[in-house]
This record gives sequence, structure tokens and C-alpha cells, in this order.
Amino acid sequence: MKIAIQGVLGSFHHQVAQQYFGEDIEVFGFNTFEEVAKSVASGAVDVAVMAIENSIAGAILPNYDIIDRHELYVADEYYLPISHNLMALPGQQLADIKEARSHPMALLQCKNFFAKHPGIQPIDDVDTAYIAKIISEQKIKGLAAVASVKAAEFYGLEMLAEDIQTIKNNFTRFIILQKDKPQHETTPTKASLKITIKNQKGGLAKLLTVLSDNDLDLTKIQSIPVMSKPWEYSFFIDTLIADEAKFNKAMELIATNYGAVKIFGTYQSRK
Amino acid sequence: MKIAIQGVLGSFHHQVAQQYFGEDIEVFGFNTFEEVAKSVASGAVDVAVMAIENSIAGAILPNYDIIDRHELYVADEYYLPISHNLMALPGQQLADIKEARSHPMALLQCKNFFAKHPGIQPIDDVDTAYIAKIISEQKIKGLAAVASVKAAEFYGLEMLAEDIQTIKNNFTRFIILQKDKPQHETTPTKASLKITIKNQKGGLAKLLTVLSDNDLDLTKIQSIPVMSKPWEYSFFIDTLIADEAKFNKAMELIATNYGAVKIFGTYQSRK
Repeated sequence: MKIAIQGVLGSFHHQVAQQYFGEDIEVFGFNTFEEVAKSVASGAVDVAVMAIENSIAGAILPNYDIIDRHELYVADEYYLPISHNLMALPGQQLADIKEARSHPMALLQCKNFFAKHPGIQPIDDVDTAYIAKIISEQKIKGLAAVASVKAAEFYGLEMLAEDIQTIKNNFTRFIILQKDKPQHETTPTKASLKITIKNQKGGLAKLLTVLSDNDLDLTKIQSIPVMSKPWEYSFFIDTLIADEAKFNKAMELIATNYGAVKIFGTYQSRK
Repeated sequence: MKIAIQGVLGSFHHQVAQQYFGEDIEVFGFNTFEEVAKSVASGAVDVAVMAIENSIAGAILPNYDIIDRHELYVADEYYLPISHNLMALPGQQLADIKEARSHPMALLQCKNFFAKHPGIQPIDDVDTAYIAKIISEQKIKGLAAVASVKAAEFYGLEMLAEDIQTIKNNFTRFIILQKDKPQHETTPTKASLKITIKNQKGGLAKLLTVLSDNDLDLTKIQSIPVMSKPWEYSFFIDTLIADEAKFNKAMELIATNYGAVKIFGTYQSRK
């Protein structure tokens, strides 16, 4: 099984790929989420694992737009507990470390740790696992990476401090993407969709009332101006489904009375 | 006047800074939007110019979160017509160009142009103006950048094709950010705000009905899970204001009955 991820091996994406699909997989790292989606759309890989919410990657909000443009399907979701760890070359002690590099969001999530360790200066960098790779390859002393347990294993670094994130009970949401529409045997309890409506007064409130009336509980909403049609707005929506029949009814109602509906996928809620 | 932007000089951000504040400014380019916000928050610069919507930069959606965390104010907005241009070293002809590099979103917006010029291969890169800089500094032949008119001027490149974007009548929205609350003399016609509500059934639909009932017409909505409180959701909202008194009434109503309101700024709608 070929799986596309954004970033280098040893990243959180890599970890999710292994936890979801097992060890018998081939993982391909791409620089951008755009390239990840292209590789699924072209059939170069079987699926992609993509962070979509609450992640250490600040840039994940545009990912629904990427999924939309590349006509991909959401087959499932997966929640990974956020766990940041301080790691360095084997033999280094906490007192040897002068700098810690990572993605700005990861460092921000470890604010309290760095406040307690003023001798270690947190410095923004491009990625989490990438720093672990560089420290390992270039044998850099005095520098630590803030990254996943996986990154420490993968690049042979030693853990100097575990679970250093300030908020302990927090998750990153990932989704599994594929080119073809998935065939689920179970009743779906969650859906990802795009609704496009005319920009009219109170239009969104009416739309959300239809969803609420049909027991659809939104977990995400994101408006996107439609590039080619200045008077239309699209909304990327994730919703819990209490009753599949009511969900289908709501989708029909919206398509008939309000605008266009595109369903990226229906699947099991994993939370 | 010191102005922070993301990216190199000659970028769309640089262009907006000059169009909005005039030529008598000092512009500082930072690698990330996070650093841009920090520089305003610390007082190192006076203001920042930041793309927020519909931009060639796919990563602009998280920018409201950055503004929120750094406690910045939105002082104004500005719309720049999207204009992509093909540029190369002086003396190069269209027939000499084998590759064109730019940000993936910029290339995507010029899809029709590249379909008509199959001899030029579009290749995804990190930025628009940055490629113009590299071509100029390293005197690279056969390669073109897709970037702004400003980038061509700034790096001494020649325009080979102008306004090559597929959709002609389109804009990128920028906002002007500052550390202190702006004092406007005119009646505001638009606001940027964050509303945090408990995640209860139909809660969002009720909230939007309050906004709609007070003649507030939403131009943007984006949900953000609250990291530290799993049962609360925040919404970043931009809204047109028809009547300032009704806007104030709606904000009071929401603060009293639904949740917390944080106003990033009220300003004139420029569209």
C-alpha cells in the first residue's frame, strides 16, 4: 500500500499512517499538501493521510480547498493525541541544550516548558521532524528538536523530556483521502461536505437552521469566497449525523432550495 | 513609517504597502506571518500589511488565529486586483522559456495560459516574487517567474506576458494591522470579530439568526476548535454593518446570551 504524506519521514503524518494502516506500507513524503493531493488524484499512491484540524501545522485550514479541487474523497478520520518531546543527539544532557527548534505552533504549545527552562531558547523553524533529521545527519550538539516520539526513533535521537506540551488532553485530527468513492458497510455518523449558496441576507442562518432541524451537529464550518462568482459563497462543513435518513433529507432540501451540495465523504466519527 | 510584510520585497504585500501608505515607507520582509505579527506586537514596526482572503497564498486562512493570539487590531482593509505576469531576464523571448516557477496557487490561476503554451512547463515553488529575485540574482536563462508587475520592476526583469490569470476580475483582500486600537472618525461599515460559544445543538444557527436580525451580513465565517476547552467553539467572523447601533446591540445580545465576543476592529468596507 502506497501512502502520501506531507513532510519528512518520522513526522506526525508518518506516525498516523503506520497506526492506521499498519507497518506493511510504503510512505512517500511531499513538500506541500498540494503535491500530496495530486499524487492521490493521479493514482501514483493509493491514499493520503492529511492533518485537517487542530494540528501543529498552522497551514492546514486550506486543506479542504485542496481536497475539493483535486476531487478526492474523505474515507475516514483519525485522532492523534498531541505529544511533543524534546530530543537531541545521544549522550547530550538537558544542561547541554542551548536552543530548541521546531514549527512555531509546536513551540507555542510547549510555552510553559520553555518558561521553566530559560537556558533553552525556542527558535521557530519550518517543521518538527525535519529538525530531528538535520540534528541526526549533521551531528549538531547543543541543539534539540521538539517533535514526535516517532521522530526520535526514526533519526536515532535521545529523549530529554517527554510530553512537554502545556495542554495534555488534546488531539490533531487527520483524514484518510482516496481517489475513488469509498464503500462503507456501516451507517455513517459523520460527513464532510461543501455547500455553495447565493450571498443573500440571512442565507447562512437559514441553511444552518435546516441542518440543526435535521439533528446535524456541526463540528466545523469555514466560508470560502467563490473565485469565479463574486456573489456566491461556499462553506466547508463537517457534521455529526444522528440519523442517516434525516441527513439525506437535509441534503435534498438544501440542494433544492438553497444551493449546491458536494459530499466529500460520509464515515464513522472517531471521537 | 515601518511596515512588516511576509515574503521578499517586490511581492504583492510590498505592492499593497506602497499603494496604501505611499512611497515614503520602510518595508521589512519576514519569512512567516507569525513573525510579521510578532514584529507588530513587540512594537518593532508600526503596522503590518497581511493578506487574509482569496490570495495566491494558500496559507492565509490561519491568519485570523495569528492576529488573535498576538492581540492585534484590524485598522482597515484593502483589495488588490489579482494580476499575474510572466517575466524573465531582459532579452529573453517567450520561445526561450522552458519553465515557469511560482507559488502553486498562482500557477493554478494561470491554468489557461499554460494550456495555450505547452512549451512552458509550470513548476510549483515556494513564492512568486522570490523566483523573480533568484532569476535576477543568478541570471538564470530559460526560466520565467509568474509574479507581480512590482516584482519585474524591482528585480529588473522583462515582462513576456501580462495579466495571464484565467479569471480577470478577481481580488486579494489585505488587512492593515496595528498594536493599538485605531481611532476612526467615520462610521464603520465592516467588522472583524471572534465569537466563542458553547457547542450546543443549533447554537450556531441561533447566533447567526441574531446577526441576521440586526442586518449584519456575513462575508466570512471560520470555526476554530478551542484548544483548551473541547466543548467550546470559536468563530472568526467578518460582517458588513448596515447600522452601527444594531451592530452594538447584536454584540451585547451575544455577549449576554451566547458567549464571548472579541472585536478585532471596525472599519470602512472597501469593496
